[in-house]
Amino acid sequence: MSQKLHVYNTINRKKEEFIALNPPFVGIYVCGPTVYGDPHLGHARPAITFDVLFRYLVFLGNKVRYVRNITDVGHLENDADEGDDKIAKKARLEKIEPMEVVQYYTDRYHTFMDMLNVKKPSIEPRASGHIIEQLQLIEEIEKNGFAYEKNGSVYFDVEAYSKKYHYGKLSGRVLEDLYSNTRDLDGQSEKKNSFDFALWKKALPEHIMRWPSRFGDGFPGWHLECSAMSTKYLGEEFDIHGGGMDLLFPHHECEIAQSVAASGKETVRYWMHNNMITINGQKMGKSLGNFITLEELFSGSHAVLTKAYSPMTVRFFILQAHYRSTLDFSNEALTAAEKGFERMMEAYNNIDKIKSSDNSTVNIQDIRNKCLDALNDDLNTPIVIANLFEAVKNINSAIAGSETFNAENIAECKKLFDDFVFNIMGLVAETSSSGNEILSTVVDLLLNERIEAKKRKDFAASDRIRNELTALGIEIKDTKEGFEWKLKN
Amino acid sequence: MSQKLHVYNTINRKKEEFIALNPPFVGIYVCGPTVYGDPHLGHARPAITFDVLFRYLVFLGNKVRYVRNITDVGHLENDADEGDDKIAKKARLEKIEPMEVVQYYTDRYHTFMDMLNVKKPSIEPRASGHIIEQLQLIEEIEKNGFAYEKNGSVYFDVEAYSKKYHYGKLSGRVLEDLYSNTRDLDGQSEKKNSFDFALWKKALPEHIMRWPSRFGDGFPGWHLECSAMSTKYLGEEFDIHGGGMDLLFPHHECEIAQSVAASGKETVRYWMHNNMITINGQKMGKSLGNFITLEELFSGSHAVLTKAYSPMTVRFFILQAHYRSTLDFSNEALTAAEKGFERMMEAYNNIDKIKSSDNSTVNIQDIRNKCLDALNDDLNTPIVIANLFEAVKNINSAIAGSETFNAENIAECKKLFDDFVFNIMGLVAETSSSGNEILSTVVDLLLNERIEAKKRKDFAASDRIRNELTALGIEIKDTKEGFEWKLKN
Repeated sequence: MSQKLHVYNTINRKKEEFIALNPPFVGIYVCGPTVYGDPHLGHARPAITFDVLFRYLVFLGNKVRYVRNITDVGHLENDADEGDDKIAKKARLEKIEPMEVVQYYTDRYHTFMDMLNVKKPSIEPRASGHIIEQLQLIEEIEKNGFAYEKNGSVYFDVEAYSKKYHYGKLSGRVLEDLYSNTRDLDGQSEKKNSFDFALWKKALPEHIMRWPSRFGDGFPGWHLECSAMSTKYLGEEFDIHGGGMDLLFPHHECEIAQSVAASGKETVRYWMHNNMITINGQKMGKSLGNFITLEELFSGSHAVLTKAYSPMTVRFFILQAHYRSTLDFSNEALTAAEKGFERMMEAYNNIDKIKSSDNSTVNIQDIRNKCLDALNDDLNTPIVIANLFEAVKNINSAIAGSETFNAENIAECKKLFDDFVFNIMGLVAETSSSGNEILSTVVDLLLNERIEAKKRKDFAASDRIRNELTALGIEIKDTKEGFEWKLKN
Repeated sequence: MSQKLHVYNTINRKKEEFIALNPPFVGIYVCGPTVYGDPHLGHARPAITFDVLFRYLVFLGNKVRYVRNITDVGHLENDADEGDDKIAKKARLEKIEPMEVVQYYTDRYHTFMDMLNVKKPSIEPRASGHIIEQLQLIEEIEKNGFAYEKNGSVYFDVEAYSKKYHYGKLSGRVLEDLYSNTRDLDGQSEKKNSFDFALWKKALPEHIMRWPSRFGDGFPGWHLECSAMSTKYLGEEFDIHGGGMDLLFPHHECEIAQSVAASGKETVRYWMHNNMITINGQKMGKSLGNFITLEELFSGSHAVLTKAYSPMTVRFFILQAHYRSTLDFSNEALTAAEKGFERMMEAYNNIDKIKSSDNSTVNIQDIRNKCLDALNDDLNTPIVIANLFEAVKNINSAIAGSETFNAENIAECKKLFDDFVFNIMGLVAETSSSGNEILSTVVDLLLNERIEAKKRKDFAASDRIRNELTALGIEIKDTKEGFEWKLKN
């Protein structure tokens, strides 16, 4: 393999070779959830996308520090800095302390990410735990002339910034268009321009989530936390920043502006964005009645679902599309993914049953190389899966006797699945019963020994094995082909 | 039931009726782990003790806000404010960012608490996330004349405090004794008196965990976080503060001093402390070679353990002692607990097999009342368990035909177990292991066949068995006595 990992860098709008700033160390920052509601389909895709990136970078031998934050304050209901803080509103509705809302939904998020076999990040910082760092960043931005205070709130001055730097660099938005496109200010706003954004919001008397500052009591703007925490844990320049495409504007555009305004430099070398999901061709939204939580998906309890889909079905389904394509959830597509994943797991279990031969009619090394090529080509997991299905075909043909594996092929094939299916794509065999599968195989092995004992006319041994298994509640039936058995109850 | 919940209030050294400050709301604060090492036996006992308190208060109809913190900064190696920060030291040893250490061991703590079926707290605040609140508290204490700054650090002035308030109220320590008992200051210390404690420590240049303050860059003293976070989330006065008895002095004594120094009032109404554990009669300690992590306990991989003990065996064992008694871990005692818990679970499963009769020779309601009485008497779980074994005896006798249950008794009996065993004591049936036990026995059987094969010099068979098991991820070690094996991962 000479090809190197290439990723699509949103800011340059092209695939670029990934070169770590300080190899073998790689720093990744990914925007995590705003914890005011149950984890849903929209959370699954970025988590799985960047989990695969994390796993693949580790597989390649890098030492990866993966930072994924928890937004527990400052994310207002609409991105134009208006409306309630999402968490404070939920707390008022449920009449509990905002931090109880945060804790509950953070725990729920973790539970469902564990079910999806998403690895825990190296550091999971919370916005509310980094107020000082955010206030320090405001100081820098203000000192450089890119922020202004108004009535206890502080706003980022996009116009002033644009005179010196390029606002819109990431999203391609043009400031002139923003002038004309944004609604007129209603005269109530404290902002100079509607596209300015809050760095610090004054806390009204009824606000519970508030901290002191030299501007008075308040709380940080949403965009600020990611700039402050990514720099704190990954340094002033780091490798990769990821997130959903919905965060590209304004969130990530504002992050760039904040960092540049504070330090004069950009912090992120590669921006990566996963595309959105749709449900039966429609955007997912609460008002559309197609907003599906992960709990509903895994239990089949939402009206648009004809059945439950397991976490690994969902993971496999998401990886069957390239992360930069939109992905449409439908019962048909999920059911197809379920079958596909089952076929893949069956083939994996059948590798052990292949009898090695001296000849080989398969080329597993070629499949392996194609999988690596696909991953190196901007994490093209659908191509990886397609290639793995070539191996599945080989395995099934070998069982049917129309292809032959030599001993090396069998070992290569196991390693192919171990590396790409389990380790890099993070899929796991779902018969919760991985223990049960081992049990099943060990009982088979023991009964094979019983057949051997009979062959050598050692009936004491064959009876002993039978009696011992029966005592364990295992019912054995001798058949023409050998045996069948089952666990009583 | 007319009896009300009574708890032993450490500060008054007696059992007192528990009267909530603002019923039905109850606020509890419990000191959580310092996350610089794997969770061990010492973490299990307070977590389970206060989990039962939490569960019982909810059972009684209260709305409980349970706050359990994560100490991720400020806990120095010895309680006299000397030595390294425990987490920073670990990070240096492992050459990673302190927050990676924090994240890793926080995740490990959660994993093992989940295994012990300890409920998640309502809020789990981190010390590093509440620096502003801690600095505000220092301001108050300093303003009232109970703190002094020295070279960028701030210390609590115990002598000044003692002139107005009672330092030693909780622990019974007498200041005069502390004068004479503490070692002489070596002249290097910045403290006025050795019993003064740090509110803020100056960060040396090599310190990574540091925050700006008007005293310069530094980090908070260990005792401060609990005063700041308990007040933030539970109010200036709240119901219950819990923790291990090892925290009584200096940690909790200092918490009281800080709160009183800042506000003139005590914040905590009931102080509750669980007693310590010993291992085979000895204090647990790394230097004694008897420091047992929960992973070692659950896998049986520590030299002092003759076997693995399941999380529910450990939970049951801990609840078999009153939380204010010392508790000695030994293989004998754990094995007895395992058997006792099995007997209890068997009886529970047998309730369904009892044939109801018109007559009744048992009094389940009486057992229920005794269980409630025991819990109301300072959470006396050993008495609860003893009474539940009366029910076990009744069930077994009913199955044997020597007692009779009517239909109501059967329903009461199920509810007795559901309420006390599962709901309040938080035990769960551990049948998932039945599959594993069969697996374990079948592997043993197969390895015995391998020994037979060797005896008859059938080395093809003995190698075959070895290779097959190895392929399943079972590691085999031949020993003098025969063999040992384990599942890899």
